[in-house]
Parts: sequence; C-alpha cells; structure tokens
Amino acid sequence: MTYCVGMRLNRGLVFMSDTRTNAGVDNFASTRKMFHWCVPGERAITVMTAGNLATTQAMISLLEERFKASEDRDPSILTQPTMFQVARLVGATLKEVIAYSAPSGPDSADQFSASVIVGGQIKGGQPTIFLVYPEGNFIEISEETPFFQIGEAKYGKPILVRAYDAEMPFEDVLKLLLVSFDSTVKSNLSVGLPFDVHVYEEEAFHCDRTHRIEQDDPVYNEIASKWGDALKTAFDLLPDYKV
Amino acid sequence: MTYCVGMRLNRGLVFMSDTRTNAGVDNFASTRKMFHWCVPGERAITVMTAGNLATTQAMISLLEERFKASEDRDPSILTQPTMFQVARLVGATLKEVIAYSAPSGPDSADQFSASVIVGGQIKGGQPTIFLVYPEGNFIEISEETPFFQIGEAKYGKPILVRAYDAEMPFEDVLKLLLVSFDSTVKSNLSVGLPFDVHVYEEEAFHCDRTHRIEQDDPVYNEIASKWGDALKTAFDLLPDYKV
Repeated sequence: MTYCVGMRLNRGLVFMSDTRTNAGVDNFASTRKMFHWCVPGERAITVMTAGNLATTQAMISLLEERFKASEDRDPSILTQPTMFQVARLVGATLKEVIAYSAPSGPDSADQFSASVIVGGQIKGGQPTIFLVYPEGNFIEISEETPFFQIGEAKYGKPILVRAYDAEMPFEDVLKLLLVSFDSTVKSNLSVGLPFDVHVYEEEAFHCDRTHRIEQDDPVYNEIASKWGDALKTAFDLLPDYKV
Repeated sequence: MTYCVGMRLNRGLVFMSDTRTNAGVDNFASTRKMFHWCVPGERAITVMTAGNLATTQAMISLLEERFKASEDRDPSILTQPTMFQVARLVGATLKEVIAYSAPSGPDSADQFSASVIVGGQIKGGQPTIFLVYPEGNFIEISEETPFFQIGEAKYGKPILVRAYDAEMPFEDVLKLLLVSFDSTVKSNLSVGLPFDVHVYEEEAFHCDRTHRIEQDDPVYNEIASKWGDALKTAFDLLPDYKV
C-alpha cells in the first residue's frame, strides 16, 4: 500500500508521500512516489502515485517521454497551458497504461489499477490539486474538500478533518501531516518511512523546497513520541463522561 | 457498516457500539448491536455484533433460545462454566447461522458473514473479552492487545493506540471512546448515533451500568466540538518542522 496527501492552503500547496511498496508482507522495498516537473518562474508540477507499481512507473516514464531518445525529449507535461490540461494528460496516460496491462477486460483492470494526485501552479493560473482516477477522469480540490488522500487513507483522515485550517503556516501543516502519517505507520505495516515532502508557496514556481524525512529524523521522532503526551493534555480539556 | 469497541482496563471492561445499519446509502435504520446476559452476583456477559444483520439477529435469537416456547427457555449462555466456553458457544452458533444461510459454499458465505465481540466475567474467572470470527474460532484480549474493534475500525484506531492506558479511570475511557467514535462518524456515513455503552467494573457481576448516548447528548456534543480546539492545543506542544 501507500499513503499520500496533497493539501491546499491559503499560502500554497503541501505534498507528502511515504515510500514503502510491497507485494505481500515478505516482499517489500522502498520506492519514490513523488515526482516533480519544473520550469523556474513559469510552472511547478508535483505528481504522487498509489497502486500497482508497474503501472505507476510506466505512467511516470511515459510522462517523461522515456520512449524517445534523450535528446528528442520535450515532455508535453512541460508545455500544457493549464493545470486542468496537465490533469487530462496524466489521466489519459494512466488510462492508457492500465488498458495496455489489462487487455482482458474490467476484472483484470482492477489488478493493474492506480490513483494519482497531481498539483502545482502554471503562471497565470491558481495553485490547485487534482485527484486522478484509474479511469482517467479526475476531480479538483475545493474549499470544502481542501485535501486529497490516496492509498491507506482511513487511519490518518480524522486528524486532518479535525485540525486542518486553510490559514495554517507551513510549519504547522507539516506537523499535522507528520501526525497523520505517524498514525498510519503505527496502524498499518504497508506504509513506512522515509517520507517525501514538498512545500510549494503560491507564485513561487519552484520545486526546491523538497525534503526526505528519514527513519532517524530527530524532529519527526520527537513529534511521534510527544504526540501521546500532547493527546493526554488534550483529553484533560474535555468534559468527563459518567455512566 | 458498524463500529464496536471492547476494551480491557485494570478496573474492568468497557463496551461501546453504534446503532446504524444500512444496505446501500438509501436504506438505513437504527438497530441495537449490544446485548447482555446477567445473573446478578454470578455472571455478566456482553455481546456486540457487526456484519450481516439477518445473521447477527439470528445468532442472538438462538443464544436466547427463541426456538423454544418462553416457559422452556434456559439459555445455555447462562450456564456455561467459563468465559472461554461462552466464546465457544457464541462461535458455534455464529458458524451454524452462516452455514444455514449460505449452503452454496465459501463465496456466498462472505455475503452472510459477521463478527462478534463477547466479553464479561463469570464468578471464579477474570474479566475478559473475545473476538469471534465468522468461522467460529476466536482470539482473546491480552496485555499487548487490550482492545478489539469490529466493523469500520480504521478511522478510530490511531487515537486508541495512542491514548490507551490500562490505569485510566472509566470517565477517561469513555472520553477516549467517544473521540474514537466521533472520528469515525465524521469520516464514514455508515456509522451513526445513538451509541450504546456498557461499563463493567471487575467483580461487580451486574449489567446495570449501561447507557444510550443520543444525538443531542450535551456532554457528547461538547466533547465533539471541543476536540478540535483541544487538538490545536496539543499541536502547539509539538516541535515545528521546517523544510
């Protein structure tokens, strides 16, 4: 499995993904699920993937035009005029890969299925995020739905629903996402460190605020270990329930 | 769906269940999923059910011996010598009901499947809880696994993992369970109020500390609405993460 979150805030966008991939419990490895395409000053696009690894790797390779010789590559994701068109391109590519792997119809398509979060900003447009389905269609983030999750999303959802605030500074958002990821890691073996993070500030058109959070990251470990005590403090603020 | 939790503490046991039942989203109703059998001073047994409603209702009816005329009933759940034997009886009854509904083999058995939490205390034994599978086998609660969940368990699990403490007084446990249930209700339409609660104090052998928490319960609503603020306070106790 996988856990990825893309979140929109008033200051910009934040993306976080885990890196564990597994087939059963005795075959697991670490793999990158977050990818960037940037033209400094003009566009910054981030893609995160969940699902069948052969499908998502093929999709990323196609988006990077690895079917062409290096010198002929001019990935069309870098020339789409809007984020909407970027989402359409990602959706069409994903659908094509799944159809190629699963010629025998809808049932086998499930096996090769994948979901994608694609977000960013292109000059002249707003920063936005899309959730792309294996069928190639997609939905856009909104004020009422300010974040998308893919993969093992249930464990980490309640804290996001509760604590999300569009006005949050990026440091608080990272804390929030780390608590959500930590809750998932503690509940499900198929999600694991390291985590990849990308913070995108509105109108910055850069991809440089990316970071990998390793197993021994001191701040992450402090957040993970202090969260239990912090929750106890939070409980004390609630009224007692007597039966 | 459903959400039920059975938890063991040093002081005794706590059970909580929701009451929503649904077939699709346009056919839903409220039904009890928590049942008690008591002999004051001698035994107190609580059963909670999740899964196919026809299966779980038939199982409860069989345990109550509703196949006999009222005057002939002497439910054998009231005469089992130990909680282990109670769990075996519940498992055998559950397996029998599923086999009756699904004569056409394992595939159709899934459709009529159900899970059960059964816990309590019989004089001479310790208070304990079992999780009974549709195959009729079961596992027992332990120090390392001090609670069982059935139904829509993922949303409410992280908070239980984090904040559970065997020494907690019952008021804190109810707070904790209400936060876990509230997180689930806020994330999944198939779980809903009212909730049923049963608090069992070790060596009490009673079933009278039961309570129904309705939609308009003032303390529940205060907990649900204050939890967001309490979490913000908890976040402030964590170190910032800068990228």
